[in-house]
Amino acid sequence: MPSFKPVLVVAGIGAGGGTGGATARAFAKLGYSIALIARGTDSLKSLETELQNSGAEATSFPIPSYEHTSIKSAFESIRTRYAAPQYSIRAALYNAGHGVWKPFLDITPEDVKIITETNVEGSFAFAHEVLSDFKKNEIDPANGKRGILIFTGATASIRGNTTTSAFAAGKFALRALSQSLAKEFGKQNIHVAHAVIDGSISTPLSRSRRDNPEWEQNEDVRLSPEAIASSYVYLASQERSAWTWELDLRPAHEKW
Amino acid sequence: MPSFKPVLVVAGIGAGGGTGGATARAFAKLGYSIALIARGTDSLKSLETELQNSGAEATSFPIPSYEHTSIKSAFESIRTRYAAPQYSIRAALYNAGHGVWKPFLDITPEDVKIITETNVEGSFAFAHEVLSDFKKNEIDPANGKRGILIFTGATASIRGNTTTSAFAAGKFALRALSQSLAKEFGKQNIHVAHAVIDGSISTPLSRSRRDNPEWEQNEDVRLSPEAIASSYVYLASQERSAWTWELDLRPAHEKW
Amino acid sequence: MPSFKPVLVVAGIGAGGGTGGATARAFAKLGYSIALIARGTDSLKSLETELQNSGAEATSFPIPSYEHTSIKSAFESIRTRYAAPQYSIRAALYNAGHGVWKPFLDITPEDVKIITETNVEGSFAFAHEVLSDFKKNEIDPANGKRGILIFTGATASIRGNTTTSAFAAGKFALRALSQSLAKEFGKQNIHVAHAVIDGSISTPLSRSRRDNPEWEQNEDVRLSPEAIASSYVYLASQERSAWTWELDLRPAHEKW
Amino acid sequence: MPSFKPVLVVAGIGAGGGTGGATARAFAKLGYSIALIARGTDSLKSLETELQNSGAEATSFPIPSYEHTSIKSAFESIRTRYAAPQYSIRAALYNAGHGVWKPFLDITPEDVKIITETNVEGSFAFAHEVLSDFKKNEIDPANGKRGILIFTGATASIRGNTTTSAFAAGKFALRALSQSLAKEFGKQNIHVAHAVIDGSISTPLSRSRRDNPEWEQNEDVRLSPEAIASSYVYLASQERSAWTWELDLRPAHEKW
Repeated sequence: MPSFKPVLVVAGIGAGGGTGGATARAFAKLGYSIALIARGTDSLKSLETELQNSGAEATSFPIPSYEHTSIKSAFESIRTRYAAPQYSIRAALYNAGHGVWKPFLDITPEDVKIITETNVEGSFAFAHEVLSDFKKNEIDPANGKRGILIFTGATASIRGNTTTSAFAAGKFALRALSQSLAKEFGKQNIHVAHAVIDGSISTPLSRSRRDNPEWEQNEDVRLSPEAIASSYVYLASQERSAWTWELDLRPAHEKW
Repeated sequence: MPSFKPVLVVAGIGAGGGTGGATARAFAKLGYSIALIARGTDSLKSLETELQNSGAEATSFPIPSYEHTSIKSAFESIRTRYAAPQYSIRAALYNAGHGVWKPFLDITPEDVKIITETNVEGSFAFAHEVLSDFKKNEIDPANGKRGILIFTGATASIRGNTTTSAFAAGKFALRALSQSLAKEFGKQNIHVAHAVIDGSISTPLSRSRRDNPEWEQNEDVRLSPEAIASSYVYLASQERSAWTWELDLRPAHEKW
Repeated sequence: MPSFKPVLVVAGIGAGGGTGGATARAFAKLGYSIALIARGTDSLKSLETELQNSGAEATSFPIPSYEHTSIKSAFESIRTRYAAPQYSIRAALYNAGHGVWKPFLDITPEDVKIITETNVEGSFAFAHEVLSDFKKNEIDPANGKRGILIFTGATASIRGNTTTSAFAAGKFALRALSQSLAKEFGKQNIHVAHAVIDGSISTPLSRSRRDNPEWEQNEDVRLSPEAIASSYVYLASQERSAWTWELDLRPAHEKW
Repeated sequence: MPSFKPVLVVAGIGAGGGTGGATARAFAKLGYSIALIARGTDSLKSLETELQNSGAEATSFPIPSYEHTSIKSAFESIRTRYAAPQYSIRAALYNAGHGVWKPFLDITPEDVKIITETNVEGSFAFAHEVLSDFKKNEIDPANGKRGILIFTGATASIRGNTTTSAFAAGKFALRALSQSLAKEFGKQNIHVAHAVIDGSISTPLSRSRRDNPEWEQNEDVRLSPEAIASSYVYLASQERSAWTWELDLRPAHEKW
């Protein structure tokens, strides 16, 4: 239907082989142009190139940190690169995260700073930019949306535990934001969703850390980024009469 | 892939125009044969005929109540009608419900009886039959499942309120069952899911009660059974590395 | 202040050495007369005698089961024994429970029946009798209450698990009831509360099962019925401006 | 029993007439010496004087902000003022908060900064100081505690809403911290608790804002700081076999 090209903005792509990258690939296949925001210049560039080689439009927007000024300026560049009316930001994924797993007394002020920057300052700034843009969009008649904003959560989004005080504080905050936004912006036909990823994801990093081919090959015991991305594609497709704010995702054999 | 014909069993179809009926139609379109269990003979028959006219295999199995003996005997008939190895029960929806909205002191022992029968006795019996069958199934290589069992929940599944003591007690119990089963049977590659339907569904009954064409036509303010059914189809398609136990569904404009 | 004697009704006292018994003792010390409802005649009688020997008024009301007719007739006897205006039922504890820990497919229809009888039919009937009486009470100026109704919950009240499908279904239902009643009857100055007991309680039964004096003597690792009873006494004392619906209770060293 | 004087540290006292002040008064009555931390110098001084006039030991430790360096240096002063072995910090209340109720797009980076400072940076720093001290304490034989750390939560601790994205993000984070700490430090006989204050508190500020004597006088419809403080005193008294992590508190007539 649309005369414009839809754009997906992803923040947080790690080394490119995780949820952020898989989501970029999945939306690219659906015809979205991709804007990639992350701290790591190398993996950004490599994912950008990969997407372009697959025939997609993709541009990376490296940021030094998730401070609000960085996010704001990344979006200014995105709006120039993907300018209306040719382009329209229609989907956004906030996938930035920072893992801190430590006994509480070992957590440093620097750990706390990066947790709050990634989960609060950055997410608020990202949502601010995205929602400001979404509000100007026409409603897509296919699904009743001006846009969809998805947040990647974790087990720690709903449960604090002995070594997750910092990580859970960040993820709880992100979940609160997503729920508040879902309630406020649903009325404006903007879909906000939150996925609780409850288990280990098979990424280049987790695979090299575990060095366990059995785990890697057994899809019953670990999440694949592609399967998570599929659920994000599904959320983006949900019709206006039945939107999901939150779903959990875990491998079939997960103990929980 | 399969040499067998997959079967969906639905319990609870109301007047046929709600979630149960829509789910039957959606799975029939995917090639499932349908077994319909419900108390109301008339609507059962009419949905059966409709499905058959659309080219699907569908058989209704009326029960007098959700007592466990009724459920057990319905399944015996289902297994005869849809016998292995030609057929294989691969999906099941427990959609039976009974609404009681009353100040607590007006609730009668009969209200409590039907609530427990529908939400506890019947759901335990249904799950017992379904899971016993699923355990014998081969794993579907496409999604890692021996079968999927879905429960229809409601706002009252997660929140008791002033007039919902009986309704919420039943729905909380059903949710507890679904979570326990998801944890126990996931390890056996059986997917158990629970949908929290948070809003009013547009059904023949709700439409006639409201008599409000504006509400009926505004998809932003009420759920459509078809959209709910789509989410059930999606759950059935989820790959083994990322299964959802619970998702919520509500109209875009819902206040919650 | 009152010219009447306050009465506590307890349903569910097990072998007398658990939460129900400890609560009866704690309220007796505060000057309450005690009405004991339970299925086990022997332990009822023995607790009754013990309370009387300590100088309290206590009467036992054995019931054959938690069917609503049994509950109703027990309350008729209670109202005769503790008749107004000399007595006034001011506190009630629903402590009845039935533990079923089994793989789901081993759960029998009889298990389901007793779970629903104990957690739904019985609790609804008990609450019906108690609340009908409370509504007639004057407000106690000390705490703003016409009465307090407390429910004993468990870990399984908020989380289903692999062997707790039946137990959790019952406990979830009870929690839904308690929340609904707290919302409906708070407005009428009736306090309804729910305690999530998250850990093993040291009772004669659990002690003989474990046969582990170390566990028994280590108060950091198991709940004592007296400590639970203290929390119920505290709830009963809460002033109208700050009532608790739900609190959790667990030993200091509990892993959760 | 103790040869030392127990100390309560309170962070966050607003204008002195709220929860922080009431808790200081309640613990002072029990014989605690009081350390007051807050941003507002005037109200700190005035509460300090009031407590001293009532015969308590009280000292205020003004801080410019909830940055971790400010908290750390306040604790250094506290440890000098209330030095071991004469004194022992045994209780701590993190009551600091900052209310932001705005449509999301009106929230400024400054709002986000103060929310994270108050609810994450400050609470982590406060907990770090308190728990480091608690670990060195002997266990109080009366209740099995080396100390108790209480966090004041709100409705927004468990539910985001249309105008509470920032407030809820902060309060969710604080709750995650409290749960993580309860799990980690319970094993070390340190009690960590979280109170969900679900309703409006009658404080000098809220009274002047409302200017509604009826609301002020009706204890059924608003929380009193003294009643909240009573619940904190109760938590501090809980024996090791039955500790509460979380309780909710609301007025009898609250709609929820």
